Amino acid sequence: MEKLTPHNITVMLLSLGILLGVARTLGELAQRFHQPAVAGELLAGVLLGPTVLGTISPELNLFLFPINGANAIALDAISNLSIVLFLMVAGIEVDLSTIWKQGKVGLKVGITTIVIPFVFGFITAWFLSDQVGRELNVNKFTFALFLATAMSISALPVIAKTLMDMDLYRSDLGMVVVSAAIFNDIVGWIVFAVVLGLMGGGNGNNHILLTIFLTLTFAGSMLTMGRWLIDKSLPFVQAYTKWPGGELSFALILALLGSAFTECIGIHAIFGAFLVGAAIGDSSHLRERTRVTIANFISFIFAPVFFASIGLKVNFFENFDLVLTLLVFMVASLCKLVGGIVGARWGGMALRDSWAVGFAMNSRGAMEIILGILALEAGIINNRLFVALVIMAIVTSMMSGPAMRLILNPVKSWKLQDALFSKLFIRELKALSRREAINEMVETVCREFSLEQDKVEYVVWKREKALSTGIGKGVALPHARIEGLAYPLVCVGISDTGIDFDAPDGKPANVIFLVLTPDDAPESQLTIVSEIARLFRNQTILQNILKTRTFTDFLALIKSQSAPKTSDSAV
Amino acid sequence: MEKLTPHNITVMLLSLGILLGVARTLGELAQRFHQPAVAGELLAGVLLGPTVLGTISPELNLFLFPINGANAIALDAISNLSIVLFLMVAGIEVDLSTIWKQGKVGLKVGITTIVIPFVFGFITAWFLSDQVGRELNVNKFTFALFLATAMSISALPVIAKTLMDMDLYRSDLGMVVVSAAIFNDIVGWIVFAVVLGLMGGGNGNNHILLTIFLTLTFAGSMLTMGRWLIDKSLPFVQAYTKWPGGELSFALILALLGSAFTECIGIHAIFGAFLVGAAIGDSSHLRERTRVTIANFISFIFAPVFFASIGLKVNFFENFDLVLTLLVFMVASLCKLVGGIVGARWGGMALRDSWAVGFAMNSRGAMEIILGILALEAGIINNRLFVALVIMAIVTSMMSGPAMRLILNPVKSWKLQDALFSKLFIRELKALSRREAINEMVETVCREFSLEQDKVEYVVWKREKALSTGIGKGVALPHARIEGLAYPLVCVGISDTGIDFDAPDGKPANVIFLVLTPDDAPESQLTIVSEIARLFRNQTILQNILKTRTFTDFLALIKSQSAPKTSDSAV
Repeated sequence: MEKLTPHNITVMLLSLGILLGVARTLGELAQRFHQPAVAGELLAGVLLGPTVLGTISPELNLFLFPINGANAIALDAISNLSIVLFLMVAGIEVDLSTIWKQGKVGLKVGITTIVIPFVFGFITAWFLSDQVGRELNVNKFTFALFLATAMSISALPVIAKTLMDMDLYRSDLGMVVVSAAIFNDIVGWIVFAVVLGLMGGGNGNNHILLTIFLTLTFAGSMLTMGRWLIDKSLPFVQAYTKWPGGELSFALILALLGSAFTECIGIHAIFGAFLVGAAIGDSSHLRERTRVTIANFISFIFAPVFFASIGLKVNFFENFDLVLTLLVFMVASLCKLVGGIVGARWGGMALRDSWAVGFAMNSRGAMEIILGILALEAGIINNRLFVALVIMAIVTSMMSGPAMRLILNPVKSWKLQDALFSKLFIRELKALSRREAINEMVETVCREFSLEQDKVEYVVWKREKALSTGIGKGVALPHARIEGLAYPLVCVGISDTGIDFDAPDGKPANVIFLVLTPDDAPESQLTIVSEIARLFRNQTILQNILKTRTFTDFLALIKSQSAPKTSDSAV
Repeated sequence: MEKLTPHNITVMLLSLGILLGVARTLGELAQRFHQPAVAGELLAGVLLGPTVLGTISPELNLFLFPINGANAIALDAISNLSIVLFLMVAGIEVDLSTIWKQGKVGLKVGITTIVIPFVFGFITAWFLSDQVGRELNVNKFTFALFLATAMSISALPVIAKTLMDMDLYRSDLGMVVVSAAIFNDIVGWIVFAVVLGLMGGGNGNNHILLTIFLTLTFAGSMLTMGRWLIDKSLPFVQAYTKWPGGELSFALILALLGSAFTECIGIHAIFGAFLVGAAIGDSSHLRERTRVTIANFISFIFAPVFFASIGLKVNFFENFDLVLTLLVFMVASLCKLVGGIVGARWGGMALRDSWAVGFAMNSRGAMEIILGILALEAGIINNRLFVALVIMAIVTSMMSGPAMRLILNPVKSWKLQDALFSKLFIRELKALSRREAINEMVETVCREFSLEQDKVEYVVWKREKALSTGIGKGVALPHARIEGLAYPLVCVGISDTGIDFDAPDGKPANVIFLVLTPDDAPESQLTIVSEIARLFRNQTILQNILKTRTFTDFLALIKSQSAPKTSDSAV
């Protein structure tokens, strides 16, 4: 029985640990710079792959990520499994009723974002086939067909992740984009199957027609009968198996079988997982806990491994051709952007949203690279074109988040976390009275953020006098709206002995949050104050706060107490 | 770059889906028959592997689980990753302070359960080497050393799972067994490294001494410095990364790197994962949510895949030798049992507990099989002995749960779930008053379970008259202890219109639980009644119950509302 040697196992575990470590670190960093996490994760692969590590230390690169042998296969198996599971999560998060509502617009966007890039991709490839990177023995028509497909395909996983990162996944705009991307990809993969067929594997036309037929049948039945069956089965699974393990396994088993089926009929495995996920996620019986467990584990473990593994596959310097890359990038982006805008306008969307749709649809990510690798292996394209496609895929993926943010300029919803600063954390208040506490905290904020102390103190105290902000359970929330403030500031003062804030329950306040919010963002006060109130529903939090010694401890406690929304958790 | 073909990917996903599906199904069934889930999971592999499926349809068996090529490697990679992750969970669940407390007894058990099987194993192998399955070119001393090791090793993963299944993992007895098993396995693997060294790989004695030194250094530093560092790092991870993804990734990255390290120094990867898990689990900063997410996903997905994959590795009929198997089984079990009892008595444990320790230590499971495979591949043993070792490993693993249950005869702690029956579920009560409702429900219970209606009605109504059991929020809990009842019975009656139960909040009862418990198990009434009260802390549950139409819906709701304890969730 062929199996891994101890050396193989060592390398596999080490490389997975490093890959996950670098990917998650860069993913977190990317988010600090308002980039989608997926950009950092892709970059991790470029750093650890032949491009950077392979140039600095080819031995180490080949030791960790060998391109042949058991370890190459092991990593490929794990990254394939990862992408399948990630697409299942993307499927679960899809809101089918919204897709249905947005389906018409999505279909229009789907059509234009295929047709326009396809036509221009075909023309470019036809007239520039030799410059663009056709392999010599491939006929011009096949090659042009491939490049046309490569231009028209989208990257559902990257689009899904970018939308999740931006908290837009379940919005109307998000669902237009997702349904268009699904349409894009189904058509794209079918055309690609035709291209591979034309390359002359013994399969031929019958095979292609069968693929198309089976794909549509599978998608149709999964979203109707499958969805119904799953909805009916879930209560049985919950009632007669161990909770929550039964439901968890049920979802994963179906996703694995569904993905095996689509891979088998010639469409990529991810579609099966996505469709199964969509059918499961649609059931009202699916419990939030199962959804969150699956989403967390897969989004934070499997997805980063997959996205990082993409960058391992190729040396980006060696095969880099600036002119070719620019050409591919321009044709791909312009066509997709125009396609997206035209489709969205046709569907009746506002101009601003249409631009956002265009940029969203322009992400190519993993799909492009998978397509590219298959084409490279089938001998349709050369290394240079492959690298150009990969760079195009990564750059378009990185562009789409910032571009959408620029266009949509979404109202920043301030959260408590964003308003906390270590220099506004007073572990031991000197104050003994309400007045002194407010003064001490106001003074700290004004010193650190150069505000006018008299003014701030006046408004905070005025509010406080009108009605005490001691809300009981040891918490007080003095607050005020401050003119000219750019963003909310929350100063935290802790008093182990407690300060009388005239609370309804008569208890002194041990934790005081001074909440200052911009005058022109009135909703931010409400958001932050109610977030604090929600935190203190947990009966043990006060004691835990009093146990903290540093700002880091405090922040850790606050962050890990607040249960995020599902879409947050999947970022 | 070597990678999986679409065919490989199809097979991988299909085989994983089937493996997980059969393993989880049989695991659930095993638990119905009061066997540990792991027994069912192991059986799944035997069914799908060469033994059963391979006999019925060799083509299908080889198609799903090929023994060579990319798919064999892919599955081996995934099962190796699974066992590493599962041992990390076992590590997280270990309570180091208990191990410390039980360490002395554990050490004594560890010593006797090694020495006794080792001595007798060595003697058996020395005098019966040719009958027992020595390969001809192996010298007697090396072979005897191997078999002695094989007799003395335990299976930490199986022991951990069995103890978790029995809810004993965190008990004193559990921790004696776990610490003894850790000691067993560390010594066992070191001796095995010596055996492989004697077989004459170029490594030699220096290598072995280095392995021993590095193992002890790693274990020591991980449980002191590593533990301290992790405890200090967790608040930073929680404060400055996405919650809960940061903590989740942090734990997995460390486990992967730790396991790579121990695999690299010649001890199996699982020890690194286990030690890292123990260090992480010990931190008071680790959040329950992270612990539960990791435990659920890994115990219900990865662990079943691993345990099932064991059965795939060999044909149990073809290489079965009854005499040899019995001999191996008797020597292994008797020695381990005696060793366990002697050690536990030496450590001052009660006789009954000592027997339980003996049976617990007797589980060999995965470790034995891994050892066996390595020995087979190194040419030390033949196929017959390998099969005998595997059967011994499986049978000892299956025995240990029931034997421990028989010996310890643990007080069955009845749960609400156990007392619910579909025939005791009345979706629409005809009753309009409290009296009628109680009569209707008592009549149903007495009819279905042949109880004396007059008697039951008398005690229930007597209790009800003394103080109304309408607890408010639409719930009523009439209850009584019934003489001669063997186990608790809960009849559920639902009334959409509501029945006046004289509740403190004045609301009529929509859901009525008639709780009948055995007279001689007074604690079961309290357990069940408080479990029901806890359920109704959730404000939406009443509405959700009123939405259910069938008993299955109702049971699904009840089960998935009750958050299990962590040790439960990992079963």
